[in-house]
Amino acid sequence: MSARYAYLGPAGTFTEAALRQVAAPDEATYLPQVDVVAAIEAVRTGSADYAVVAIENSVEGGVTAVLDALAVGDPLVVLREMLVPVTFTLAARPGTALADVRRISAHPHAWAQCRHWLADHLPGVVHVPATSNTAPAALLAGERTDLGFDAALVPPPAVQHYGLAVVAEHVSDNESAVTRFVLVGRPGRLPEPTGADKTTLVVHLPSNQAGALLEMLEQFSTRGVNLSRIESRPIGDSLGRYSFSIDAEGHLADERMAEALMGLHRVCPHVRFLGSYPRVDAPYGDVRPGTSDADFRDARAWVTALREASAT
Amino acid sequence: MSARYAYLGPAGTFTEAALRQVAAPDEATYLPQVDVVAAIEAVRTGSADYAVVAIENSVEGGVTAVLDALAVGDPLVVLREMLVPVTFTLAARPGTALADVRRISAHPHAWAQCRHWLADHLPGVVHVPATSNTAPAALLAGERTDLGFDAALVPPPAVQHYGLAVVAEHVSDNESAVTRFVLVGRPGRLPEPTGADKTTLVVHLPSNQAGALLEMLEQFSTRGVNLSRIESRPIGDSLGRYSFSIDAEGHLADERMAEALMGLHRVCPHVRFLGSYPRVDAPYGDVRPGTSDADFRDARAWVTALREASAT
Amino acid sequence: MSARYAYLGPAGTFTEAALRQVAAPDEATYLPQVDVVAAIEAVRTGSADYAVVAIENSVEGGVTAVLDALAVGDPLVVLREMLVPVTFTLAARPGTALADVRRISAHPHAWAQCRHWLADHLPGVVHVPATSNTAPAALLAGERTDLGFDAALVPPPAVQHYGLAVVAEHVSDNESAVTRFVLVGRPGRLPEPTGADKTTLVVHLPSNQAGALLEMLEQFSTRGVNLSRIESRPIGDSLGRYSFSIDAEGHLADERMAEALMGLHRVCPHVRFLGSYPRVDAPYGDVRPGTSDADFRDARAWVTALREASAT
Amino acid sequence: MSARYAYLGPAGTFTEAALRQVAAPDEATYLPQVDVVAAIEAVRTGSADYAVVAIENSVEGGVTAVLDALAVGDPLVVLREMLVPVTFTLAARPGTALADVRRISAHPHAWAQCRHWLADHLPGVVHVPATSNTAPAALLAGERTDLGFDAALVPPPAVQHYGLAVVAEHVSDNESAVTRFVLVGRPGRLPEPTGADKTTLVVHLPSNQAGALLEMLEQFSTRGVNLSRIESRPIGDSLGRYSFSIDAEGHLADERMAEALMGLHRVCPHVRFLGSYPRVDAPYGDVRPGTSDADFRDARAWVTALREASAT
Repeated sequence: MSARYAYLGPAGTFTEAALRQVAAPDEATYLPQVDVVAAIEAVRTGSADYAVVAIENSVEGGVTAVLDALAVGDPLVVLREMLVPVTFTLAARPGTALADVRRISAHPHAWAQCRHWLADHLPGVVHVPATSNTAPAALLAGERTDLGFDAALVPPPAVQHYGLAVVAEHVSDNESAVTRFVLVGRPGRLPEPTGADKTTLVVHLPSNQAGALLEMLEQFSTRGVNLSRIESRPIGDSLGRYSFSIDAEGHLADERMAEALMGLHRVCPHVRFLGSYPRVDAPYGDVRPGTSDADFRDARAWVTALREASAT
Repeated sequence: MSARYAYLGPAGTFTEAALRQVAAPDEATYLPQVDVVAAIEAVRTGSADYAVVAIENSVEGGVTAVLDALAVGDPLVVLREMLVPVTFTLAARPGTALADVRRISAHPHAWAQCRHWLADHLPGVVHVPATSNTAPAALLAGERTDLGFDAALVPPPAVQHYGLAVVAEHVSDNESAVTRFVLVGRPGRLPEPTGADKTTLVVHLPSNQAGALLEMLEQFSTRGVNLSRIESRPIGDSLGRYSFSIDAEGHLADERMAEALMGLHRVCPHVRFLGSYPRVDAPYGDVRPGTSDADFRDARAWVTALREASAT
Repeated sequence: MSARYAYLGPAGTFTEAALRQVAAPDEATYLPQVDVVAAIEAVRTGSADYAVVAIENSVEGGVTAVLDALAVGDPLVVLREMLVPVTFTLAARPGTALADVRRISAHPHAWAQCRHWLADHLPGVVHVPATSNTAPAALLAGERTDLGFDAALVPPPAVQHYGLAVVAEHVSDNESAVTRFVLVGRPGRLPEPTGADKTTLVVHLPSNQAGALLEMLEQFSTRGVNLSRIESRPIGDSLGRYSFSIDAEGHLADERMAEALMGLHRVCPHVRFLGSYPRVDAPYGDVRPGTSDADFRDARAWVTALREASAT
Repeated sequence: MSARYAYLGPAGTFTEAALRQVAAPDEATYLPQVDVVAAIEAVRTGSADYAVVAIENSVEGGVTAVLDALAVGDPLVVLREMLVPVTFTLAARPGTALADVRRISAHPHAWAQCRHWLADHLPGVVHVPATSNTAPAALLAGERTDLGFDAALVPPPAVQHYGLAVVAEHVSDNESAVTRFVLVGRPGRLPEPTGADKTTLVVHLPSNQAGALLEMLEQFSTRGVNLSRIESRPIGDSLGRYSFSIDAEGHLADERMAEALMGLHRVCPHVRFLGSYPRVDAPYGDVRPGTSDADFRDARAWVTALREASAT
């Protein structure tokens, strides 16, 4: 049986583009879901093997919901991350020229991201709000003639899927925008360390004192572990207590990460490990002097020798 | 002319409930918008005086978009924050009893938040996904009889607005869930300090080194300023650089906050001040010894005396 | 053969009082030395088994010399610490009454420590400087009659040793003053941990940046290890580089101390271990939550389980 | 009347060499004292205008006593620092050749510093301990013929003063050794800032917790102030409380130093300012970005503008 992947559907979403990086449609079972929480729950209940969900900067939303859904409930781990460029295509029914476009259907987020291009190339064009990035594509693909709009801003994968014609490509104002997605599965063998990995954690602090936050972060910095993402989330059960969702550079198999996690476990009331996996966006910076695996081994050997000298 | 408030509409949203805490509908002009970015832009362009937008933990989404929209563009400031309980009401057309309900329309976020209640009280009930929290209310208020559902999970304000009947109240699994909203306006006179205030900032770091983050946070802790929220956001222009959205306890008028901001201004490549305003959710903890305004004045007087002794 | 102890002589010094806490004169060989460096070198060359030297706050001086002598050369370790109250006795030849005393011989440090008592009880008395605390005792014990003074401020042990008479006891202005001495030997079995121990270290920093010092100290604080003494010493070979002599609370056998030493070994160019031994002056404060041996073991077990889960 | 300088005498000491850097003997009144405490007290009582005392690494001892004497009592300030090379000359009566030397008188510290040179050039030579660096010079200058030694290790200034002959110069093993001395006076106009200054402080901590020490040090590092010396000293009145003697880079007139002192004043139970004065040993490292006076002024102007905007 091919692996089953739950994701935010329908076809043509940026999330689907992320999923295609993991498994081609003909080699896997795609299970579109109505939202990210449903995608995650599908893995927990066993109706899917994996979920693909946005975890940072998504134009489809749901990132906060993803973080919260992973933070509680049955343990899941991140196995891989995928970047998807967030660009939009101005699409229409075949035969539509740019000069014909008077009214554009677009999700408000999409509209906002193309605002300057539209002002430059289609001054005066009217925005017809859509409820998702793919809804106007589906309408254009249908039979209705009273759509009330001539074209739509859609994710590039939706163009082919819905058989649309391209009016203009790369109409986003910031062509380098990307959304980060992750592949989530049930705990098991972690991906092998690659030398450029990322570890995702949820950590609770006992209070919202700045001192408590610094003490927690020192558990990383003392071992030379950099962070690439940190977000505080209020803990529902009590005012003034915070949970932190953290991406740290390195793999559980790295000595510095293992010692940092030990430190967090000792001083924080709750730590959840959400996986170590290859990072896709950038190679590491250099490992800080004194924090390589060899440095840790040397240090341990030195202390062991001191202790054994004391036992002879 | 009454003040004009842009907000995420339509009527009946949680955002509208937040707006009602600021100004009653008969004393103000409510300007519903298709999304939070549009609400914020309405203030920048002058088509509204204020915007009400979610800033933390919203079930209506858009929080990330709010943070990003405030972080760049013409300066705006937060003037006030409002908490709205996020509870749901199971509503239907008049005459519908709980036992009659077979199919429920609900936004997936709403469905997720009521999952346990529904499993207990309506085992086997079918979920009909909705595109927003108010869309099914509007449908129930209409004439159509082929809705495909018997009831809907809606925000409490939507019940009255759409003339619906309550089937069951307080059906959320976590009755203490709240979303935090803020009132945003153009810069001008800040709200007076109340002794329990909050200051919102956007701060850029030069790198993603853990050391750089600690150095930035020490600018707060050294002056005894606690944080109540911190979120990293990637800066679009470059890999590995981060922006932090921060809520800190205290007011710009407090000495410790002013000195912390001076410190941030000195060591960070970019700091944006997004307002000081009364916090609504909790009183302060005690001010840490040595960080009251009087302590700062005493310290300054001591140094001034040392310097002047040297000048006599 | 009884153990041989090198110490700052002659008989009657405070150092000898410290040595008596370790071994009675009839069970050990006392080897008085002209100074603390000679005492330490006697152990290195094998002409003594142990040395007793002052390490903090001595009125006989030499503390800096002790720290420097232990920091370089063949490794030695501290095995025990001893506190000696630094009080003075006003002593004279038998038959001398307080009212007879016109001129007092005293080492300048001794004089300084008794200044107020003397002003109160012997106004106008003349100070005859002595070159050590025991030199005037030896003179009083001799035959000469032209000493030029009537009495002397001497350590209490010198009174009996030199057969003097007590004119007044406890004449120091600060009766709680103590000097800390240590017993030094060649490396071997460390003293057993007692639950209230101290570890002495020499640590070099790569630069005199405040950041470098903080980074070094965080290696302790991150593991909940408190310091009870820290002294910077310039490193002779280069301007602006510093060595730190440190006493930390805890024993090498404690997990938190072992991990802190590993951290120092990784990030500092040089770390010398100078022993773990029972502290004599005060019981511990409570161990900080999360830093007991059990906490470290639990944390290690958790990380090991995470890693092994990844290997199944 | 020429200025009166108290110092550790007699003539020929390293301290006198330090004093000569400040004022030539024919332009000032030299007041030799029996020890450093007496020198400092002479300024407090008004019998001297200034004192010259060793403050770091002295071979004549007394450094701890200096730190303690400045830390309490009537306020004094450091006005200047002077470095004196600590080299020794092997001196004798005229006509003595190196080959004639069988027995050398030397203070034990001096002997220790010349140990290797002596082993190389005078193997088997006998050490005759002296009580100070100048005592054997005085004996050689006298009439006695039964000295019991042929030569002495003395500070270079003592050679000429006592009319001795040089047998060998630069006999110290470490020719770059220096001792740091300071000129101490009563509070008044501080020396002008030079761009390479030093500020000396005494700071008490409320406890010996590592966290308390870090918090204190962050008051410096947060403002980019480096330390060049730190020494903990037990506070006599209570176990486990510490005083720190600190040299920090910069002048009270520097903004970063002023703000750091304000921070210390706020969070520490006691801070004593012991002067800002030109440092003699090394130019500054570069000022850390963001911590120049201009950076502080810009930051203050920015906060002031934010506050005033709020008042318009």
